[in-house]
Amino acid sequence: MASQVPTRAYRRLSVEERRRQLLTAALELFARRAPEEVSLDDVAETAGVSRPLVYRYFPGGKQQLYEAALRSAADELEQCFAEPPEGPLTERLTRALNRYLTFVDEHDTGFSALLQGGSVVETSRTGAIVDGVRRAAAEHILRHLGVAEPTARLRMTVRMWISSVEAASLIWLDEDKEPAREELRDWLVEQFVVCLTATAGRDAQTAGVVRGALALEDAEGAVGGLLRRVLPVVEDAGHLL
Amino acid sequence: MASQVPTRAYRRLSVEERRRQLLTAALELFARRAPEEVSLDDVAETAGVSRPLVYRYFPGGKQQLYEAALRSAADELEQCFAEPPEGPLTERLTRALNRYLTFVDEHDTGFSALLQGGSVVETSRTGAIVDGVRRAAAEHILRHLGVAEPTARLRMTVRMWISSVEAASLIWLDEDKEPAREELRDWLVEQFVVCLTATAGRDAQTAGVVRGALALEDAEGAVGGLLRRVLPVVEDAGHLL
Repeated sequence: MASQVPTRAYRRLSVEERRRQLLTAALELFARRAPEEVSLDDVAETAGVSRPLVYRYFPGGKQQLYEAALRSAADELEQCFAEPPEGPLTERLTRALNRYLTFVDEHDTGFSALLQGGSVVETSRTGAIVDGVRRAAAEHILRHLGVAEPTARLRMTVRMWISSVEAASLIWLDEDKEPAREELRDWLVEQFVVCLTATAGRDAQTAGVVRGALALEDAEGAVGGLLRRVLPVVEDAGHLL
Repeated sequence: MASQVPTRAYRRLSVEERRRQLLTAALELFARRAPEEVSLDDVAETAGVSRPLVYRYFPGGKQQLYEAALRSAADELEQCFAEPPEGPLTERLTRALNRYLTFVDEHDTGFSALLQGGSVVETSRTGAIVDGVRRAAAEHILRHLGVAEPTARLRMTVRMWISSVEAASLIWLDEDKEPAREELRDWLVEQFVVCLTATAGRDAQTAGVVRGALALEDAEGAVGGLLRRVLPVVEDAGHLL
């Protein structure tokens, strides 16, 4: 097949298609480089269009493109935690974390740059987008826990775990993605289980959630494995009872 | 006693005393108001000096004063986790968290503004100062755990818990400091215990740390209380073993 001349190719796209194409190119670049290292020329080149065309769609230049790309990444990230409410909770959470960590893996540099802060493209708007993702993830999880009106303590537990997952993701990227993604994922699920269980000792609603969730787990699942690995570590703690 | 005229009073201070006085005034203001809402006039007024005098000590203006105040707050915050290596680990952590949450309580608005981001005074320098506090806190805790060379997994667990404490602090401030500081503190200690214990199931070094720490705890302490509250919640989970 003969390669198409970009100018011919892009005349055929609708306004919406063109916008999406530029956004895809921007997201690809912002995912793998720090915002400082992405120019509008790079975006134009990646999309196979001219720089003036990029400006026609994004007259606010790089800042506007960055925010649009971030908005689009945020939508994708929020969807990671959308999961049918079926089966043991730890299995649902495992699937959600799998999508989340795949996203982190594929957007490594951009993810670090965004969350580590100090970048020139960061504003209160970009901060609000990131915070929106955190809130959406918390809402998804609380829905899976089956509580319409979570207590402050339960909500706080979920939000604390989300923060710790974010921290773990950054450290993971910083440490050349060690351990393997699947192992990190399973460990983060276990962290959720124990954090929720500790809160259950101080909050009746959370205790109900934990009891209900444990009833749906089976011995071969995440909680069974966790128990079998942890019990030998604490077997000498009888003096504490 | 007759009140002193500010101009007379401040001529008597040495350069270092004066600098400290201005910093104290700045920290007091930045602790209780968003950086946007603090002017150099406010700092001058709080310190009882003239605006030109503030500029003489901080020619970089508000940005320089903010960074110096943040540096001073960071030093104080790092000291929260300095604790003699004696007694059960949960008691040491309880004392450290008590100091930390007292600091958060006393610097509420500034703490939120700093960590929630999007402020005009934030730069890569202020980000580095905040990150330095996190790292110092992690080092303090790892020293208390008695490991000279922590595994990646153990270090990650400690840093994840620090992130979740930060998240909890922000939510706590946002929710009018509910629950009471002591209750939040004890619950955060419990979260640390269970996170570490879950990691112990996957990391031999952490398992050794947990075994050693549990041996030093007693039934009346934090871990004993946690166990007695949590065991009834999980008593029906026998099918998972």
